[in-house]
Amino acid sequence: MYTTEQLQTLFESYLAQTDFPSEPQLLYAPIGYSLAGGGKRLRPMLVLLSHAIFDPNVQQALPAAAAVEVFHNFTLLHDDIMDNAAIRRGKPSVYAKWGRNVAILSGDAMLIYAYRLLSGLTSPRLPQILAAFNRMALEVCEGQQYDMDFEEKQKVSVVDYMHMIELKTSVLLAGAVSIGAMLGGAPDDDCRRLRRFAIELGLAFQLQDDLLDSYGDRQLGKAIGGDILEGKKTFLTVTAMSHADAATRTELRTLLADDRLEPVKKIAAVKAIYDKLDIPHLTQQQIELRFEKALAQLDTLTTESPCTQQLREFATSLMGRKK
Amino acid sequence: MYTTEQLQTLFESYLAQTDFPSEPQLLYAPIGYSLAGGGKRLRPMLVLLSHAIFDPNVQQALPAAAAVEVFHNFTLLHDDIMDNAAIRRGKPSVYAKWGRNVAILSGDAMLIYAYRLLSGLTSPRLPQILAAFNRMALEVCEGQQYDMDFEEKQKVSVVDYMHMIELKTSVLLAGAVSIGAMLGGAPDDDCRRLRRFAIELGLAFQLQDDLLDSYGDRQLGKAIGGDILEGKKTFLTVTAMSHADAATRTELRTLLADDRLEPVKKIAAVKAIYDKLDIPHLTQQQIELRFEKALAQLDTLTTESPCTQQLREFATSLMGRKK
Repeated sequence: MYTTEQLQTLFESYLAQTDFPSEPQLLYAPIGYSLAGGGKRLRPMLVLLSHAIFDPNVQQALPAAAAVEVFHNFTLLHDDIMDNAAIRRGKPSVYAKWGRNVAILSGDAMLIYAYRLLSGLTSPRLPQILAAFNRMALEVCEGQQYDMDFEEKQKVSVVDYMHMIELKTSVLLAGAVSIGAMLGGAPDDDCRRLRRFAIELGLAFQLQDDLLDSYGDRQLGKAIGGDILEGKKTFLTVTAMSHADAATRTELRTLLADDRLEPVKKIAAVKAIYDKLDIPHLTQQQIELRFEKALAQLDTLTTESPCTQQLREFATSLMGRKK
Repeated sequence: MYTTEQLQTLFESYLAQTDFPSEPQLLYAPIGYSLAGGGKRLRPMLVLLSHAIFDPNVQQALPAAAAVEVFHNFTLLHDDIMDNAAIRRGKPSVYAKWGRNVAILSGDAMLIYAYRLLSGLTSPRLPQILAAFNRMALEVCEGQQYDMDFEEKQKVSVVDYMHMIELKTSVLLAGAVSIGAMLGGAPDDDCRRLRRFAIELGLAFQLQDDLLDSYGDRQLGKAIGGDILEGKKTFLTVTAMSHADAATRTELRTLLADDRLEPVKKIAAVKAIYDKLDIPHLTQQQIELRFEKALAQLDTLTTESPCTQQLREFATSLMGRKK
């Protein structure tokens, strides 16, 4: 059995040895740049860890792990164009570095490349794996579209918001664990449970991200309040809107839309409303609930393996908690 | 055996019955809009006709034909953003109608949808078919990148230009016939010959397109000279550059780059140079050569079928010639 760190090393060296053609340079160079960007490799690790529960042969799962990571990076390339985002993981985004057209076309090539990695799997369950990947990929597009739709909408309900982040964040994690499990030969029931685990984990993870953006984390040292300054819809805003009286709703809406307010004042004013409505606590409750639900799914797996504990610990560390 | 017209009807009704979700509307509506746009359905017809040579069961080839058509339309959505093209088949492009972000994301969904159609094929040769599709898809991206690169380049050789249009136009036709043939159970040798047929046919078709843009076609009634006005690199320009003396080269380059010249005068001046260098005749020679090479490949197929003649006639009609 490999440790999580060993799996990470195996994955990095697998990814580093993938050879992209050198020409046309503007098509392929951004792919290498984007994949070398690192990030947490959360999704490929979920592929490898859930695969390991059912099959110790990690080698066979590496192309699937890479496919999921390449797909994830494809979404970042295109999202950064749509969101006009110049910075990604502390470096210029592909969009900012090479321009819109290069980011579109290199992104397309990455999506195709993800399918190429998948297509090379030698598994009797290849059609099922492809179907899971296709579903995941389409749902991620749906999530991104809803996210953009929400920017234009005055009213977004908590239910709609949860549905959007399930599509935009959770289904990619769910795709990762399902594909890993299927490839490892998991029984259908266990695939479904792992899927449920990942959906809940994704929700917990995204809500925590929303909370930390406004309330911060001593360890992270990240600038606080970015979402508030952008007037972005998050779990905090939609929950506040649903709990507030009419006057507070109007106040919050006006505050979030105000671009001329001094940043420090805007953040403080919005957070004062959140605090009054007990939003941090309500959000934390949801995070706990979702995370507990996620872990509970792991307890129901019919297949016994020490790797289940490894996956549990990975999920726990992901939430920034002690194992 | 179905007639070509019957196959066209079958394909249109197959495509019309594909059900896209209704929400999110901005993700899925452009897909229906784009696919209903018609066009020649050249690529799916190549799938169906080459499949028919080896297997009369057209039903099984319809999803593959649709996959290739959906892929083709995906490339149009993204190309129109990159080329800033407002009109496609006489209607507003998706990019012009819904904007850049919608065209990016709906295009992505179409690419995924193409894979979904392919993934549903029940063929023992699915991995091989996927590999052919992946190769085709990546090469089409390479072709688009080279095409954009050429716009920035002073000097493009005839060889480089032929390579670019092989990638941008021919490989999609080659992918279509290979996938149709593989799915029909064709021997590898026949797949290779059909591929060669489609590569040459694509080149003949593209060169004819280049020629007609400047010299027109009575039947088409299309405005003449669009490529010249845009200063676009075509077979005519790159051949002229390679045949001209230094002075004429400079003259042609200056003319093509001149945006302030009166359109009628610019077209006449460029065509005068082409005529002096015998470019229309040289292009016509290349078209004949490529088209003959294409048809010759069909004569070498090891599988005997009346459908080979049908494919020959389809290719001939495509070139706007009498059968």
